[in-house]
Amino acid sequence: MANSSSGESVIRRVVRLVGAFDDAHRTMSVATLARRSGLPVTTTYRLVDELLGEGLLEREANAEVRIGTRLWELVSRSSRMVGLREAALPFMEDVQSVVQHSTTLGILDSDEVLYIERIGSRDSMVDITKVAGRLPVHATSSGLVLMAYSPPAYQDLFLSRTLEKFTDATLTEPAELRRHLAGIRQRGFASMPGIIVPESSGIAVPVFGRTNTVVAALSVVVPRNEENPAARVPVLMTAARGISRALGWRGELKGALRQSNGSI
Amino acid sequence: MANSSSGESVIRRVVRLVGAFDDAHRTMSVATLARRSGLPVTTTYRLVDELLGEGLLEREANAEVRIGTRLWELVSRSSRMVGLREAALPFMEDVQSVVQHSTTLGILDSDEVLYIERIGSRDSMVDITKVAGRLPVHATSSGLVLMAYSPPAYQDLFLSRTLEKFTDATLTEPAELRRHLAGIRQRGFASMPGIIVPESSGIAVPVFGRTNTVVAALSVVVPRNEENPAARVPVLMTAARGISRALGWRGELKGALRQSNGSI
Repeated sequence: MANSSSGESVIRRVVRLVGAFDDAHRTMSVATLARRSGLPVTTTYRLVDELLGEGLLEREANAEVRIGTRLWELVSRSSRMVGLREAALPFMEDVQSVVQHSTTLGILDSDEVLYIERIGSRDSMVDITKVAGRLPVHATSSGLVLMAYSPPAYQDLFLSRTLEKFTDATLTEPAELRRHLAGIRQRGFASMPGIIVPESSGIAVPVFGRTNTVVAALSVVVPRNEENPAARVPVLMTAARGISRALGWRGELKGALRQSNGSI
Repeated sequence: MANSSSGESVIRRVVRLVGAFDDAHRTMSVATLARRSGLPVTTTYRLVDELLGEGLLEREANAEVRIGTRLWELVSRSSRMVGLREAALPFMEDVQSVVQHSTTLGILDSDEVLYIERIGSRDSMVDITKVAGRLPVHATSSGLVLMAYSPPAYQDLFLSRTLEKFTDATLTEPAELRRHLAGIRQRGFASMPGIIVPESSGIAVPVFGRTNTVVAALSVVVPRNEENPAARVPVLMTAARGISRALGWRGELKGALRQSNGSI
């Protein structure tokens, strides 16, 4: 069905076209789209025409194309991300107004942290997170929290990989990371100065979902040496509990969060 | 290319599948998906398999399927909606914290108001707006603001239609609506008690973009008879100017906003 001579399906080719757009390339000519997606120019023109017809792409006044309102709407009204971010947003606003630094919500997806919401200054010098942007698990406080609460088999698989050292502070040795993940579970938060860029520090806590598993990490990104976890972790933990309740969580948070009360 | 025996393309069929999900149907069985999308069951199973393979759909533990994280990410990182909502969100937080009622950002799309952001209470009894939800132009303060600043030819086309009367307060007569739109342009805001549900009132102002055209409406939804526009319109106008600046607007807002200064 529906395959090109290269054997690639229409769906795969559309994914390549849509995937050619990103934060730095929100509009482009069809020729650029062909080049960035790696599809033949004639194929690109034909698919773009059909996508324009469905409203999945839209044409700008200068004839460049962009992701269409219809595509955003189709995805946004039903995505799990939307439910999670709607539950989290009021609590993120509370954190941001108290802490006065960028506040993010991240999930684990395909072995990376995918940030599904972010509020705060857009021009922050120290925060490289973006909505729908990805960062490595071992180089972010959110990633380490999400990994700390993942099943042991998944942690083992992750720790068997070669991990990039972004700064002097990035942990990459499996034994060291494993101890660190255990510490995060025990304390109930991660505070990681300068592990991805030297000038910033992330503090993150887990957000539990309805079934008492960790569904997201709530984090603030602050300038290095201003992380002050003793003041900020309780704010994050309070907000995370609110998000959990909004997600339908009913039980007690056992272990991690209770244990951490004495240590901060 | 790629057409079924019914002549419908793969892209059209995928749109029907994705369009079968909405806020009330975030997960469903493949059989339900076939029924809701109107596609043959075998076609649905085949397309769902391929969409699962690309990560555009995901399977739940109970074998139901939902919109995949990958699809959300592909669309969110490059959509124009994301740029607009990121620019607006900090200012919407300011409005929400001052006004203490739901704050929404809407655009005009396919002759309806499409709400691209909303913050505030999720349980509000008086606010029927939803993120990625649509409401009629003539029955919402946001819609009337967006229509008021639309080109005259578009207004004429819109006013030539038969419009539904939702409540006693809904304006549906062309001449009456035209006078009302002129009044909105003159004052620079719309304050519309009970035009879609009797118990709520919307107050909306235009948000100007880089090229000095109206790109969105900023609105608060408050209980009927508590709309207090004299107190709330200046808050909304101040926030709308902030959003406009964040969008790259540099000029003076002529006419509407200045004229309204004396009247509120």
